[in-house]
Amino acid sequence: MLTFIGLGLYDKHDVSEKGLRLIRSADSVFLEGYTSRLMGTTREELEEYYQKPVRLLMRADVEQHPDELLDCAAKGNTVFLCAGDPMVSTTHADLRIRAAERGIPTAIIHGASIVSAVCGLAGLQNYRFGKSCSVPFPQGAWSPTSPLDVITGNRAQRLHTLVYLDIQDGRYMTVNEGIALLEAMAQKKQVTIPLYIGIARAGSDAPVVQAGSAGVLSSADFGLPLHILVVPGELHDMERQYLERFAGLC
Amino acid sequence: MLTFIGLGLYDKHDVSEKGLRLIRSADSVFLEGYTSRLMGTTREELEEYYQKPVRLLMRADVEQHPDELLDCAAKGNTVFLCAGDPMVSTTHADLRIRAAERGIPTAIIHGASIVSAVCGLAGLQNYRFGKSCSVPFPQGAWSPTSPLDVITGNRAQRLHTLVYLDIQDGRYMTVNEGIALLEAMAQKKQVTIPLYIGIARAGSDAPVVQAGSAGVLSSADFGLPLHILVVPGELHDMERQYLERFAGLC
Repeated sequence: MLTFIGLGLYDKHDVSEKGLRLIRSADSVFLEGYTSRLMGTTREELEEYYQKPVRLLMRADVEQHPDELLDCAAKGNTVFLCAGDPMVSTTHADLRIRAAERGIPTAIIHGASIVSAVCGLAGLQNYRFGKSCSVPFPQGAWSPTSPLDVITGNRAQRLHTLVYLDIQDGRYMTVNEGIALLEAMAQKKQVTIPLYIGIARAGSDAPVVQAGSAGVLSSADFGLPLHILVVPGELHDMERQYLERFAGLC
Repeated sequence: MLTFIGLGLYDKHDVSEKGLRLIRSADSVFLEGYTSRLMGTTREELEEYYQKPVRLLMRADVEQHPDELLDCAAKGNTVFLCAGDPMVSTTHADLRIRAAERGIPTAIIHGASIVSAVCGLAGLQNYRFGKSCSVPFPQGAWSPTSPLDVITGNRAQRLHTLVYLDIQDGRYMTVNEGIALLEAMAQKKQVTIPLYIGIARAGSDAPVVQAGSAGVLSSADFGLPLHILVVPGELHDMERQYLERFAGLC
């Protein structure tokens, strides 16, 4: 049996009770360590908390050589842990398909995801979000403007955009870096983004949520990762009040 | 202090460990009972589980007369429980603003939400969803086609649509009813929706996920609530494989 368990947003206590019980009774525990991570804990702390070894998997272990993991799942109760809610991207969907092809039963235990958490943190209604996008770290001369196209497309429909910030080799893009990259794209395309919302450490005891123009947020210190951005479309009255009250919108 | 706690998707074990600890140590516990509900438990069972009284709040208690709740929060640790992740709609954003106006500190403990759970259940990538919509129960002669407009707008951009099904006075719209209403709108507007994905009891041990045409799904029995629909846009190869494997897509 292979059970995908979402650990939620920030630390070892964000897993659901149901998930924790399954982890504690599992024969093998694997932790996915390449799409995101829980910033409020470490593998070592999870091992102590679960009272069992936690094997860290990098991308190649899952996407190219999943056999060891699937062998475990064929023999006993195996759990595959990841930050947030499992399979928000299809990265792990492939693993579930491979398990099924080998006749291994699978299940999903859901966890809190940034996808819905931004709504409460920023007071923005879920049904007013359009398609989301990601800002990648620049790679040499490659500088796509596709994230900006998603944002302007959504804004034309008065919709908000959730903007994922890149994670690469232990480097986490900050709100400030994300805004600088988007502003460069906006300048190239002669587009103006009047308002950003920067969010840091969602799910922790001290999340930071700050709304303002690129100028205002560029000098703000959001502190430790993970960071994420929202570019709002037209704000409803309640959304504006919420941002004024909880995110310093002037 | 007023802490909004998301209970997750289905039963009493879907709350995060962090949330459960706060509930057990709270001075007052309120449960929001009008936007959604956990189908796998009851208020009585939650009271037994938390070992304390749980007061059920209906819409008027929160939106028109929140004073009793806010009085409790001004005096002690008060938790406000809801299904899913708090404030995915702005219904409760207003309550957080009112608390802040009275100088009451607030916090959010996130829970698993259907917004992200559909990705894992149906194998659809989060960033390929457009704006979501809701299908309301018909009210007399009033029959809006706005949900269909959202779906066709998303499909024109090759995006998926999450379609919330109405909940009213203890009546839960089924996948079959939702599809019938959408098909009536589609007929009126001469639009064809080739594929639906019906999902029932997300977060339970036995969720049902079934993909197919309106004809195929109309006769399918999705069982007990809650139900939700997804209308996919263009499917990527991995998404199609996943639906074939886990949702009976032919």
